[in-house]
Amino acid sequence: MSLVRVHNFAVSLDGFGTGEGQSFEQPFGHAGSRLLDRFLDTRTFRKMHGEAGGSTGADEAFASNWGTGIGAEIMGRNKFGPQRGPWVDEDWRGWWGDDPVFHTPVFVLTHNPRPTIRLKGGTTFHFIDATPAEALRIAQEAAGELDVRIGGGPSTVRQFLAADLIDHMHVVIAPIVLGRGERLWDGLEGLEERFDIEAVSTPSGVTHVTFTRR
Amino acid sequence: MSLVRVHNFAVSLDGFGTGEGQSFEQPFGHAGSRLLDRFLDTRTFRKMHGEAGGSTGADEAFASNWGTGIGAEIMGRNKFGPQRGPWVDEDWRGWWGDDPVFHTPVFVLTHNPRPTIRLKGGTTFHFIDATPAEALRIAQEAAGELDVRIGGGPSTVRQFLAADLIDHMHVVIAPIVLGRGERLWDGLEGLEERFDIEAVSTPSGVTHVTFTRR
Repeated sequence: MSLVRVHNFAVSLDGFGTGEGQSFEQPFGHAGSRLLDRFLDTRTFRKMHGEAGGSTGADEAFASNWGTGIGAEIMGRNKFGPQRGPWVDEDWRGWWGDDPVFHTPVFVLTHNPRPTIRLKGGTTFHFIDATPAEALRIAQEAAGELDVRIGGGPSTVRQFLAADLIDHMHVVIAPIVLGRGERLWDGLEGLEERFDIEAVSTPSGVTHVTFTRR
Repeated sequence: MSLVRVHNFAVSLDGFGTGEGQSFEQPFGHAGSRLLDRFLDTRTFRKMHGEAGGSTGADEAFASNWGTGIGAEIMGRNKFGPQRGPWVDEDWRGWWGDDPVFHTPVFVLTHNPRPTIRLKGGTTFHFIDATPAEALRIAQEAAGELDVRIGGGPSTVRQFLAADLIDHMHVVIAPIVLGRGERLWDGLEGLEERFDIEAVSTPSGVTHVTFTRR
């Protein structure tokens, strides 16, 4: 049975999943790398950045689950890039270079569809104008027996949670106060009633919180 | 050297330190007891409620620090009671009965001062109209060599943090999404730069986050 999963989704103590002022240079706006930087030394994240080595402790145990058994990702347009409205720069192919980390079809939710981008290593970016439920059906068809990852950003994860489409979510609380940006938890009052929740802090200073649908 | 401390201050995943709709029956509004209920089985909290027994693990280790070495508390008016504006019911003596848990002078911040209340066990409620810095000076004088606890609610803790008056803060993250109420973290962007922060999750499901001023 194909599951819908969220992994390595970092939020600040005040619940922001990204900062304010996203740009080509700053995917997370004023947050910079602060949401994830305690996580970047893991083996999985180093590999994503083309580096060897990395930690193999609890942070890595969580980080490495990101790709296992995933057959497609759904992401919001703001995760793909900082452009809003009609596309002015169709050369933009995301922040992940010519050989993106995904290696699966990726469905980008946008009200402004554009042609599919096919990149090395099996990553394709498909741009679709769809509700969460419709997008999920499309992604599940592409994923076959495998699971679908909801990749973010915060408003995309929030919409899938609100529609009760997520089976398993891994959130990482970074010990910072961002102050502004996009909140993950808005509109999700009582979320804990639908999930079994576990929390574990690690020596890097983050707290991993997992949500397993009941 | 007298310190300024916050203890056992619970917030939800979305950063609310209390819910919406406070009343005489519901000190935490719609949050009910959910912010603290994983904590109520500790020895310290059971003792506060006149009960014997209770857990003695990590939650208790944190909970028990609440009273040690404290000579005075400062609390916001909304922690003392649900009345706003001029006092209509001066019979109200807080939620803690005739023998409150404090056993020290307690300074209640309010723009509407009223006569001091003296209760059993050494608890006195003084009502003062003062800035955080002024209130702290008064409380420190009352506390002598001992420390001053900032008791809440969220807006009071926030004001003392904003004024950089807090030396040590213990926050408990409860794995719930409250959705509405009073936020602790608002206006505190970059707080992590002023504190060394540790996080530890416990089997009860909460995460204790401690802030030690650098």
